[in-house]
Amino acid sequence: MIDLKSLIRNIPDFPKEGIGFKDITTLLKNGPAFQIAVNALCKPYRNQKVDVVVGIESRGFIFGGAMAVELAAGFVPVRKPGKLPAATLREEYKLEYGTDAVEIHRDAIQKGMKVLLTDDLLATGGTAAATIRLIKKLEGEVIGVAFLIELSFLKGREKIPDVPIHTLIDFAQE
Amino acid sequence: MIDLKSLIRNIPDFPKEGIGFKDITTLLKNGPAFQIAVNALCKPYRNQKVDVVVGIESRGFIFGGAMAVELAAGFVPVRKPGKLPAATLREEYKLEYGTDAVEIHRDAIQKGMKVLLTDDLLATGGTAAATIRLIKKLEGEVIGVAFLIELSFLKGREKIPDVPIHTLIDFAQE
Repeated sequence: MIDLKSLIRNIPDFPKEGIGFKDITTLLKNGPAFQIAVNALCKPYRNQKVDVVVGIESRGFIFGGAMAVELAAGFVPVRKPGKLPAATLREEYKLEYGTDAVEIHRDAIQKGMKVLLTDDLLATGGTAAATIRLIKKLEGEVIGVAFLIELSFLKGREKIPDVPIHTLIDFAQE
Repeated sequence: MIDLKSLIRNIPDFPKEGIGFKDITTLLKNGPAFQIAVNALCKPYRNQKVDVVVGIESRGFIFGGAMAVELAAGFVPVRKPGKLPAATLREEYKLEYGTDAVEIHRDAIQKGMKVLLTDDLLATGGTAAATIRLIKKLEGEVIGVAFLIELSFLKGREKIPDVPIHTLIDFAQE
């Protein structure tokens, strides 16, 4: 069995000093490891109906596209402001300093659709929580959120209280 | 049979006046159509060994991740400058005004690896040509390039003369 966690590379001081960046490219490029990760991310949802997988720009697109194929679902991108070309909804979320926002196409999800959300990393949970608000505004049903990595010391789960969370790799301290 | 082309939405004047943007989100969100597109994109490569699929930021990540699962390969991201955290190679390409650049991790591809490149759209071919130069610098073998859409009136194929090109949907005029 491949140890997925050992394939994550730590990059000190990226994108700025004092931050240890979890580089997933060392896992992605490894074919067997990538297959195992996508399979494991999909496992809780295999016996459920999934209409669309929502992936958050831009590393969430990699797993989102892969999981949509694996689960025979559609794919919906959630992007930074100004990137989606048609009519959008926007949700802001707090950063350490200031705010950022995510957008979804207004026609991306129909009422009652079963939606699975994915991203590479659960950190403070702000982006995922904002994305869940977008999905709920469109009256989609969020059946779960799947992350490759969780930085549990940042307590991101507390920002996503109402949705089952599935993660593969935990870093319990910085 | 689903007509994939009919699922592409044209957005006039995006991202700027005079440009007709091909919006693929209307195809992506349609589960059966997304499965058919990913399958058709992979078809020429099913009987070949593919070590990694290279996807170009950021819509190329969606198909790249999906195709890597479908072909049991690894995935390698090519990104805008400054986004990849470890040591990179960079290639510039010309825009209408000025230049842009793409980067790849230096350790992303080993000598002799079979590499499949993908992106959502072949327009002028500048980004794909620059990405092929990156792969060749790392001594990877580009076995093919697959695009969901080709804007053949822009003659992007002329910038990629040495590599087999596979596209699913053509727009022959603006």
